Amino acid sequence: MDADQNFQQLNLTLPPAPKPAGIYKPILISGTLAYVSGHGSVQTDGTLMRGKAGADINADEAKLAARQVGLTILATLKANLGSLNRVARVIKVLGMVNATPDFERHPYVINGCSELFASVWGPDNGIGVRSAVGMGSLPDNIPVEIEAVFELKA
Amino acid sequence: MDADQNFQQLNLTLPPAPKPAGIYKPILISGTLAYVSGHGSVQTDGTLMRGKAGADINADEAKLAARQVGLTILATLKANLGSLNRVARVIKVLGMVNATPDFERHPYVINGCSELFASVWGPDNGIGVRSAVGMGSLPDNIPVEIEAVFELKA
Amino acid sequence: MDADQNFQQLNLTLPPAPKPAGIYKPILISGTLAYVSGHGSVQTDGTLMRGKAGADINADEAKLAARQVGLTILATLKANLGSLNRVARVIKVLGMVNATPDFERHPYVINGCSELFASVWGPDNGIGVRSAVGMGSLPDNIPVEIEAVFELKA
Repeated sequence: MDADQNFQQLNLTLPPAPKPAGIYKPILISGTLAYVSGHGSVQTDGTLMRGKAGADINADEAKLAARQVGLTILATLKANLGSLNRVARVIKVLGMVNATPDFERHPYVINGCSELFASVWGPDNGIGVRSAVGMGSLPDNIPVEIEAVFELKA
Repeated sequence: MDADQNFQQLNLTLPPAPKPAGIYKPILISGTLAYVSGHGSVQTDGTLMRGKAGADINADEAKLAARQVGLTILATLKANLGSLNRVARVIKVLGMVNATPDFERHPYVINGCSELFASVWGPDNGIGVRSAVGMGSLPDNIPVEIEAVFELKA
Repeated sequence: MDADQNFQQLNLTLPPAPKPAGIYKPILISGTLAYVSGHGSVQTDGTLMRGKAGADINADEAKLAARQVGLTILATLKANLGSLNRVARVIKVLGMVNATPDFERHPYVINGCSELFASVWGPDNGIGVRSAVGMGSLPDNIPVEIEAVFELKA
């Protein structure tokens, strides 16, 4: 299992690793855990995808945004750890969807990120626990924000 | 202190342990911590309670839903750990209430889960840190979603 | 680096450490980590700041509320650990802003807490990972709720 190679075979492009939009670190390592800040949907050109699920964008577009958030998290991991192979497994994902009060398909949306992680680290190590929930609003009206915890190899 | 026996004395019925509604594990163990995914209010017949606090349901009904989420988490623990006695203590609960913008009684609602955990593991080990907050929307319009972290016995 | 002395030099006043508004502990220590419950904006007189960002209060007022939440967390740390010097570093902050659906400045708001922590523990140890997001509602209509994880000195 080579996570970097798995990612290459997906033929996806990493966006630039985002600089903090406030006073925080994108990633912090404590013991064997790597904590990752809430990431938004940074596109290849460095700009953000925007829009609220149920109003500006539909569930499929929001799922693409969640995949883009996943790519942005991969960019942060790669920039800070050097290789995606440093990750032993996904521990936890908090998937937050910017949605209208009647939106109900948050798990479908966050699968956009979870499918990416499963492709990179495999169907066991690439899948952790998760919550998928609906926020009233998100910074810059991004569709999805995701924070995560990873276990690193010893 | 026998958590399984404590639960039996409550005369409550566990719902079936839910299958993931997306790409995640219901529970993941890392070191001495058991991370539990966001759970919804699964009823004994396997269907979900639904409704938004402040609109479709009131605070007391939402509190009952939070207790049902607690029962669903107990079902996941029992199915995966074999016994509730494997849990040393509750570390952390994130209680998310699907609520209207003017709803203010989230702590009262999430007490429905916290009272259950305190009954099972006792007034010290059964009570951890907690946030009780209001979401704009939740999957399938469930009233409450709760994720949790437990410490396991060595 | 003396965190208590750093705090004193800010000439700010700690509010009273809040009693739980529900069934939870304000702080729980597991291993070297101190988990802190979701805290609200308790003022020096013990009352809560209230209001929704984008409706009742603007971004600057919400940022002041986030600083007040930070002070409330410091009050809990001081009351339970004895000294802010017991904290080795900030691991994680989840900053939740009670906001209207079109609010976009959550990172700016939560900086009110992050700037305080950076002043107390310094620009490296005082800054951890963070998510800044918008809730549909919060208990008692408080503007900001923040939960946090700290690493303690060995």
